[in-house]
Amino acid sequence: MTDSTAADLLTAWGVPGIGEVRPGDDLAAVLGDALAADAAARPATALADGDVVVVTSKIVSKAEGRVVRAADREAAITAETVRVVATREHAAGVTRIVENRLGLVMAAAGVDASNTEDGTVLLLPLDPDATARALRAALAARFGVLLGVLVTDTAGRPWRQGQTDIAIGAAGVRVLDDLRGTTDTHGRALQVSVAALADEIAAAAELVKGKATGRPVAVVRGMAHAVTAEDGPGARVLVRVGPDDMFAEGSAEAYARGWKDATGAHPGG
Amino acid sequence: MTDSTAADLLTAWGVPGIGEVRPGDDLAAVLGDALAADAAARPATALADGDVVVVTSKIVSKAEGRVVRAADREAAITAETVRVVATREHAAGVTRIVENRLGLVMAAAGVDASNTEDGTVLLLPLDPDATARALRAALAARFGVLLGVLVTDTAGRPWRQGQTDIAIGAAGVRVLDDLRGTTDTHGRALQVSVAALADEIAAAAELVKGKATGRPVAVVRGMAHAVTAEDGPGARVLVRVGPDDMFAEGSAEAYARGWKDATGAHPGG
Repeated sequence: MTDSTAADLLTAWGVPGIGEVRPGDDLAAVLGDALAADAAARPATALADGDVVVVTSKIVSKAEGRVVRAADREAAITAETVRVVATREHAAGVTRIVENRLGLVMAAAGVDASNTEDGTVLLLPLDPDATARALRAALAARFGVLLGVLVTDTAGRPWRQGQTDIAIGAAGVRVLDDLRGTTDTHGRALQVSVAALADEIAAAAELVKGKATGRPVAVVRGMAHAVTAEDGPGARVLVRVGPDDMFAEGSAEAYARGWKDATGAHPGG
Repeated sequence: MTDSTAADLLTAWGVPGIGEVRPGDDLAAVLGDALAADAAARPATALADGDVVVVTSKIVSKAEGRVVRAADREAAITAETVRVVATREHAAGVTRIVENRLGLVMAAAGVDASNTEDGTVLLLPLDPDATARALRAALAARFGVLLGVLVTDTAGRPWRQGQTDIAIGAAGVRVLDDLRGTTDTHGRALQVSVAALADEIAAAAELVKGKATGRPVAVVRGMAHAVTAEDGPGARVLVRVGPDDMFAEGSAEAYARGWKDATGAHPGG
């Protein structure tokens, strides 16, 4: 029996030497130079067929100049918002969980104030799937290898403490591994078994990148079975919104809407 | 600047040779034998200080005899349920998203029919944190190393397609890495930065285990900075339910409750 998701040996490492990325920087060149320098210093890190290069969205945003003044943060979140899912007031202000342009449901629409210059915040990249495709093409051309590329961001989850990294852009990586046609060790069809491979690779990569190290890029090796000749549909297919979404609205918001629809008024109003 | 989350090099591999686990099996002995045999065949796999052994919950459940007849599946789900979060009818029946005994919010309370004998389903382990502690102690005694142990299961997520593995039991692993006291490369305090390390390790391990291979155990190496002398609080601290949970109820359920509370009746009823 074959299992398309299982690597024999997975290795992952952060790529050193990527300095501060600035608006207009050629990210493919910056990445390529860092990868080449790493390979010169540590030959085993030279990119090989089947490697997945995992790029933190922050440096994509920086290269794209997606910086706004912190004073404009709330307006920026509003501009990035397609749909408000839930809001909650607390001492420091209001947390807004929203669906953003990319279909991602995230706090503050993914707008981030870490690792940015004082007085600024960073928006998510314009089109991380397109960026992944462009980086893939450039790195493939430069190094002559068949790669996958992921663009990742950090997100919270309902019901779980802490954040994990997820894939918001992808090229050349089978992002979902649909095992529903395969059988288990008892010969029975596997039940609910669509592995979110790209998110699991993103999480593995985060373990070697870390948030504060200035290592925004990692290489994950061992997933050649998930690297495809075609760019594929991108990370957009990881998004689940619409009729399939049982949590399209926060509990308090849905409750209030039910009340309002029943009475024409807000609860208590 | 130090970053407590970043490994220099992460490696992960599946442990071969673990056969079918049966009720009453001594899981520590089964695991230990498989790890010892692997080390004899491939010396580099010999457990070392700082390794994390990642165990699929399914084999814990099997050793605990947590098997019930498939005909009793719905009753088993009900018995495992602390609180119903959302339900949805579809052609094949009703999907129930519930909070289970362990505080985990999962479809079908985590009751699983894959990789079990025909006509049976498997409940989640009784106390995966306790199991992680026991396995850790036994493996540490046998191999004389300082390890972390995770017990993992596969879960869906709101707003994302596909499933990822998460930690439902932990011993000797810093499950959450709170970076809020640390600074970024601009010297600014990191914002929303509590990394769910144990979930990211679980995801990395899943990439080498796979669902259908009969490799229910993996070793993750390179996370020694997250392995602690103490067992620690376990994976239970990864659970977020209660006042902090903005998605305690499915949107449709919350809407209906709001309607009902406003009118004393169900929508349309």
